[in-house]
Amino acid sequence: MNKSFAHKKAVVVGAGLVGSLWTVFLARHGYDVEVYERRSDMRTAGYSGGRSINLAMSERGWKAVEKAGIREKIEKVAIPMPGRMMHSVSGDLTFQPYGKAGEAIYSVSRGGLNLELLNIAGTYPNVRFFFDHRCADVDLENPRITFEDLKTNTLKTVEAPLIFAADGAFSAVRYAIQKTDRFNYTQFYLDHGYKELCIPPNPDGSHRLDPSALHIWPRGNFMLIALPNADGSFTCTLFLPFEGEISFEKLTDNASVDAFFRTYFSDAMAHMPTLSDDFWGNPTSSLITVKCAPWQWQNRILLIGDAAHAIVPFYGQGMNAGFEDCTILDALHDELEGDWSRIIPQFAQQRKADGDAIAELAQRNFIEMRDLVADPKFLLRKKIAAHLHERHPDFLPVYTMVTFSNTPYHVALREDDAQNHLFKQILNLENIENEWMGEGVDEVYQRWKKEG
Amino acid sequence: MNKSFAHKKAVVVGAGLVGSLWTVFLARHGYDVEVYERRSDMRTAGYSGGRSINLAMSERGWKAVEKAGIREKIEKVAIPMPGRMMHSVSGDLTFQPYGKAGEAIYSVSRGGLNLELLNIAGTYPNVRFFFDHRCADVDLENPRITFEDLKTNTLKTVEAPLIFAADGAFSAVRYAIQKTDRFNYTQFYLDHGYKELCIPPNPDGSHRLDPSALHIWPRGNFMLIALPNADGSFTCTLFLPFEGEISFEKLTDNASVDAFFRTYFSDAMAHMPTLSDDFWGNPTSSLITVKCAPWQWQNRILLIGDAAHAIVPFYGQGMNAGFEDCTILDALHDELEGDWSRIIPQFAQQRKADGDAIAELAQRNFIEMRDLVADPKFLLRKKIAAHLHERHPDFLPVYTMVTFSNTPYHVALREDDAQNHLFKQILNLENIENEWMGEGVDEVYQRWKKEG
Repeated sequence: MNKSFAHKKAVVVGAGLVGSLWTVFLARHGYDVEVYERRSDMRTAGYSGGRSINLAMSERGWKAVEKAGIREKIEKVAIPMPGRMMHSVSGDLTFQPYGKAGEAIYSVSRGGLNLELLNIAGTYPNVRFFFDHRCADVDLENPRITFEDLKTNTLKTVEAPLIFAADGAFSAVRYAIQKTDRFNYTQFYLDHGYKELCIPPNPDGSHRLDPSALHIWPRGNFMLIALPNADGSFTCTLFLPFEGEISFEKLTDNASVDAFFRTYFSDAMAHMPTLSDDFWGNPTSSLITVKCAPWQWQNRILLIGDAAHAIVPFYGQGMNAGFEDCTILDALHDELEGDWSRIIPQFAQQRKADGDAIAELAQRNFIEMRDLVADPKFLLRKKIAAHLHERHPDFLPVYTMVTFSNTPYHVALREDDAQNHLFKQILNLENIENEWMGEGVDEVYQRWKKEG
Repeated sequence: MNKSFAHKKAVVVGAGLVGSLWTVFLARHGYDVEVYERRSDMRTAGYSGGRSINLAMSERGWKAVEKAGIREKIEKVAIPMPGRMMHSVSGDLTFQPYGKAGEAIYSVSRGGLNLELLNIAGTYPNVRFFFDHRCADVDLENPRITFEDLKTNTLKTVEAPLIFAADGAFSAVRYAIQKTDRFNYTQFYLDHGYKELCIPPNPDGSHRLDPSALHIWPRGNFMLIALPNADGSFTCTLFLPFEGEISFEKLTDNASVDAFFRTYFSDAMAHMPTLSDDFWGNPTSSLITVKCAPWQWQNRILLIGDAAHAIVPFYGQGMNAGFEDCTILDALHDELEGDWSRIIPQFAQQRKADGDAIAELAQRNFIEMRDLVADPKFLLRKKIAAHLHERHPDFLPVYTMVTFSNTPYHVALREDDAQNHLFKQILNLENIENEWMGEGVDEVYQRWKKEG
């Protein structure tokens, strides 16, 4: 703990994943932290699911929770998924490892992780939580912020020399800053929505599908995925266009839902006894990408996590990116000796390119997951990439860079562009289907490497 | 007037250029129109300038004011500008016609035009104005909207089965819709700001520069422009980066402003006796582009003008685009017999591509104006384009399409892409500087035409 900053005050807006993790970091540095959260305290009120996509914790997330001192606790409930299991329409399975032996992403429940972070944050005497408090007004001229206590319907204005806005994709703090001059802002929705569904455990508590994989049913313009939970169940998510030939708007009754699943996901459906209840009980949610700049206001308000860079979930990096914000901010705090007038603009400026890059990579991965994973050319490319990585250890597949390293996202995006160029040449080689380990591939690689 | 719609009510938010013109159209169709405007009534309070860029009225604008019955009135104060007059650093002048003989854009004062439109709208007994009324809340669930009377500080909620939001780039109505699910939205600021300056008339009331041109001092990354006014003055606008080597932030005192103008705009400066007062008296304003979709809410609220598609001013199309919204809406009203449940979604859907296209064209024209107009290759391209147009009347320069025709903007943008491709080939021809009227050009053109 840096003693000189003890008794300095920080306000954190939002006690979701990023807000509560960042609170732990601030608490460890000795700040008096006030955390305001619109929802009720899930430590007493419980966690309400129904519209969550399970989290896939990878290197950047682990690094952050380790720094926060809770890695071991999370590890106990995290389920390793060393690869994707792809389900064809006829039920054939293809397993595709995500990385090398020993590398895996980890299925973690959003509620469980959030709860753990709140519990840890709550152990610090210098942290105070205010649940059921909605951010009502951000004073941009003075260091003050106003919340509405939703239980008493009263307004409360507090001093806030330092505000961290971790209030998510629909950040109230960001909406306030949005109206200031020269603030660039984009919110973009996919034409696809998603719905949470469920594969419950077997009667004996075991998993109905192989739990050591992220299951995907890629169907071109739509897909189903399933991530294992510790209780033997899988959380499934259906991604489907809102409108069109095959879409949510066409699924209007049990008969159409039944026919849709029977046609496209029959092997999954066999494990979904509560399909109808889940389908009608859970909402159809939209998928937003948010980009903005600058991420800060006058060196005293900083947007972090989804408030700064909400992305689509297809790279499994939303939470990981938000947690990495905390790691990077923490390192800057040490480097700049707690001088927020330098930390905040430097973080906002330096990290922005990474937020934009992971947003782009996540959108590209949607195409890959729903579409290309079932494409023989794509599978061939994956095989060649793994092979090149074996032969040339400095050739890192982009998925590996994003998932199993801490390489800045903007470097990974640049590499993705470069590798797309490389594989376009490789896949054009004659007889590449059979010669994919041949000298021709290596020659193209060496040339590409030199050009790089 | 379509009698069956008499006594139907419409609310117009904003009495700027587009709001007041659209009010005239609605009034002519017999609607009871309530117009709410945040500012005071400029018919009594006057018009406050200082941050306006003069308007360049062209075909789309004329078509709309003609339909509204005020073409003649506007023509009396509009000054034709048949071309651009470019001023080099050393004071050399180059005149470049905008179109063919007889074609011109027209310099019009924003305040004067707005006043005229309000006067016309005010002659209809079925129009009621409410000035000093700020839009405070838009009820998205019910056909109601709430305004704050800024003179009494009281709130007033009115029935609004049909709302036209013409409340500009920072539309309050749009901010309300922005938070609804699946609303795509982008606000983007240029790194350049602008400042209004002035060239007053000669003592005898005459213009100090040739009034039959839009004057440009293109200087690469920045520029000065001047548009003539009927009173003998010119309204000038300086476009300059906010930050950087040569920027507003570097102009901190009279000495630096003086040195800057002396270096880059010495011939203009000779005509700017009030430069210092204007520079410090007028604000430095930013330049925003807004794109969003859908432009409507539940077939009863429609965004028009800048509220739907704010663009940068470099094509002189902001007002023209907003006025064209009115013309198109009016035509749809006739075609769909006043059925707003069909007019609104159809307009929003069909017109969106044009809003996006003119936004893109306006940004491209910024590059052209500040930079390329001083580039010999660009001047050559313009010459060849004019020559091709002479020789092949169906070859329309994009500027002509946008400015002197009513071709949909999205068609003009597609043509701009295609012509950029054409001229890339033409300008690569050997000895093109001398052979620009030669057979080689025609051959490339014919080939390009066939491919098209």
